[in-house]
Amino acid sequence: MTPVLLVLNAGSSSLKFQVFILGDGEEPQRIFRGLFEGLREAPHLRIRDRTGTTVADEDFGSDGAFGHEDALLHVAAWMRAHSGGFELVAVGHRIVHGGMTYCEPVRVTAEVLEALERLVPLAPLHQPHNLEPIRIFRRRFPDLPQVACFDTAFHAGQPEIARLFALPHAMMEGGVRRYGFHGLSYAYIASVLPAYDPALAAGRVVVAHLGNGASLCALNRGASVATTMGFSALDGLPMGTRCGSLDAGIVFYMLREMKLGPDEAERMLYTQSGLLGVSGISNDMRTLRRVAAREPDARRAIDLFVYRIGRELGSLVAALGGIDALIFTAGIGENDAATRAEVLRGAAWAGFELDDAANASGGPRVTRGPGPTAWVIPTDEELMIARATRAVLSRPRSSRPQPAL
Amino acid sequence: MTPVLLVLNAGSSSLKFQVFILGDGEEPQRIFRGLFEGLREAPHLRIRDRTGTTVADEDFGSDGAFGHEDALLHVAAWMRAHSGGFELVAVGHRIVHGGMTYCEPVRVTAEVLEALERLVPLAPLHQPHNLEPIRIFRRRFPDLPQVACFDTAFHAGQPEIARLFALPHAMMEGGVRRYGFHGLSYAYIASVLPAYDPALAAGRVVVAHLGNGASLCALNRGASVATTMGFSALDGLPMGTRCGSLDAGIVFYMLREMKLGPDEAERMLYTQSGLLGVSGISNDMRTLRRVAAREPDARRAIDLFVYRIGRELGSLVAALGGIDALIFTAGIGENDAATRAEVLRGAAWAGFELDDAANASGGPRVTRGPGPTAWVIPTDEELMIARATRAVLSRPRSSRPQPAL
Repeated sequence: MTPVLLVLNAGSSSLKFQVFILGDGEEPQRIFRGLFEGLREAPHLRIRDRTGTTVADEDFGSDGAFGHEDALLHVAAWMRAHSGGFELVAVGHRIVHGGMTYCEPVRVTAEVLEALERLVPLAPLHQPHNLEPIRIFRRRFPDLPQVACFDTAFHAGQPEIARLFALPHAMMEGGVRRYGFHGLSYAYIASVLPAYDPALAAGRVVVAHLGNGASLCALNRGASVATTMGFSALDGLPMGTRCGSLDAGIVFYMLREMKLGPDEAERMLYTQSGLLGVSGISNDMRTLRRVAAREPDARRAIDLFVYRIGRELGSLVAALGGIDALIFTAGIGENDAATRAEVLRGAAWAGFELDDAANASGGPRVTRGPGPTAWVIPTDEELMIARATRAVLSRPRSSRPQPAL
Repeated sequence: MTPVLLVLNAGSSSLKFQVFILGDGEEPQRIFRGLFEGLREAPHLRIRDRTGTTVADEDFGSDGAFGHEDALLHVAAWMRAHSGGFELVAVGHRIVHGGMTYCEPVRVTAEVLEALERLVPLAPLHQPHNLEPIRIFRRRFPDLPQVACFDTAFHAGQPEIARLFALPHAMMEGGVRRYGFHGLSYAYIASVLPAYDPALAAGRVVVAHLGNGASLCALNRGASVATTMGFSALDGLPMGTRCGSLDAGIVFYMLREMKLGPDEAERMLYTQSGLLGVSGISNDMRTLRRVAAREPDARRAIDLFVYRIGRELGSLVAALGGIDALIFTAGIGENDAATRAEVLRGAAWAGFELDDAANASGGPRVTRGPGPTAWVIPTDEELMIARATRAVLSRPRSSRPQPAL
């Protein structure tokens, strides 16, 4: 039996998973990517192997009974049954929030799980879904090592000043501060920078993680010094359906004048705003690009996205005291040459000079000239989780967590 | 009798007023500055003449009965009784919010007042206090012309993209957008730039209005293209007691986890945050500077203020596509050389080179070298109101408002 790691990213109605061969001294090797969608509604599973070939494509009835636990057990059974057989030696989880305590990946114990549950109020729409598979595996496979990898951890070493809100001291002490997210993506990009250009790893770099969720992170010598997301996953850039930076006064206006309850108001900011809210058409940049020429509201949503990236880029250039490179990653960053071109043209003030041909063909370098450079680098959060999970497994169980990156 | 203008800036428990001789073809001439404080508590009035000599210094009992109406009537009587006698020909009011309609000063009619009252939900903590003196004067002196001057108006010409939040379309149509404030201050600074350096008036300038309220505004050829304040007076820079930019998720945390009602949460963000909240000591930069060496929390509050100015400056440099000058104004901007020095040192990345000696002596120019310049320019919002009031008076009453600057 081949020893493998399972990497999980669980949402409210979805379960993404990847399977990695543990490997021996080298990088973990990804062999399958799977996605359950429509859990508790019309569950569908698709699994692809490392060549991209679909090896499973199944529906699971639409009586609403098939949920996360069924999905996890199905994945476990599928792995055992797979020709050749896999021995599942550990599970690595993407957990949105590590709070002030967890600044690096950690092996899950009863105490850790309890501590992570106490963080639910900091990320009420994500943390519960992230934790549910941990509980299920602990119940069903109590001896299986589980490792929690945090989207906040990479930012834990930021200067204090970058993490402060101008709020009463007691609120900051109570945990109200800028945490930042997408840390697994930024950690991955930081880890591969030297392979693209050794100078980047020692420089001042802004990474633009532009997916359905989106943020920017300023890296100085590979370490996060500032990021656009704050306390929750709402802040910073506009996203597919999330509003990004918002005047707090608007929330009070929604409660008092629009007569929304807090849950309704929050849902509107998370699920009906961003590209979807402004365009009224779609949260998907591909759709918006396709219709922008004839739909002014789609064009406006794109323009706002690009404009806000430009403004936040300026803010991060100030945090870094200058900029040597800009990295585009995640769905939009890796695939939408038009967004990259618009961002870079808007950033000419910082010295960026777009290379149209290189950008159209996906880079990796998409600028020319003597100014700062820009690059397209695919991210790989799951590989970061696999790496971290393997690293935690190889640690003596009693070892204390080390300080973050 | 000398014809004079009264300029009013009314707060919840205070009434600032200035008296201007109308003048004839030239600038209105300020002859008195007055301040009522502690209205409905322990009212105190101080009036100074143009030489700074105190010409009135009175208490008005502490039975809680003496409020805004009494204060206004007292001012009117004081002016009539003043040696030589003044004929009050008009009142100019500072009004925080002009909404989407009022993009320049306007003579107050019943319809205008009604429209301004409908804007109360957009600025619930300021607009009602601004409007009360208008109602009182209309009742007591129905023939006295009154002019409303708006803190939002100067920003009305911004590009649409700078004014959009990434919210559902219906909310934007309903008036939820970035308005920006401190517009009277920015308009004044824009009006005097040519006197400091003709090149500035044609250039890309960031104005830092740093007082107990604080914001930055990006001017391109003297017109506002972006500003840090948004929908309400909460957003952007941290202020004396206001939080500045805040992740909207924090408001939901305050409601759900801290069990605050919307009014309590809002009050905390307006009155217990900012420099006061972070330091736990004072909302006054002078106090914080005095104790910073021995009080780390005071130092932290100052550092956060300076850091956030630096980040927002970067964002506005991006909006402008570069920067030619930075202007410091208002209480802290005009008087706190240390804040100016810290901001400019942090902005070395943009080419600013602090001139220590010039900065210590208050400028006006506080940089040297070939890079962008920085200046100290005192603001004068009341003079802008006096100018605007005189201009509106000289218009035929039937004239339609003109488009904003």
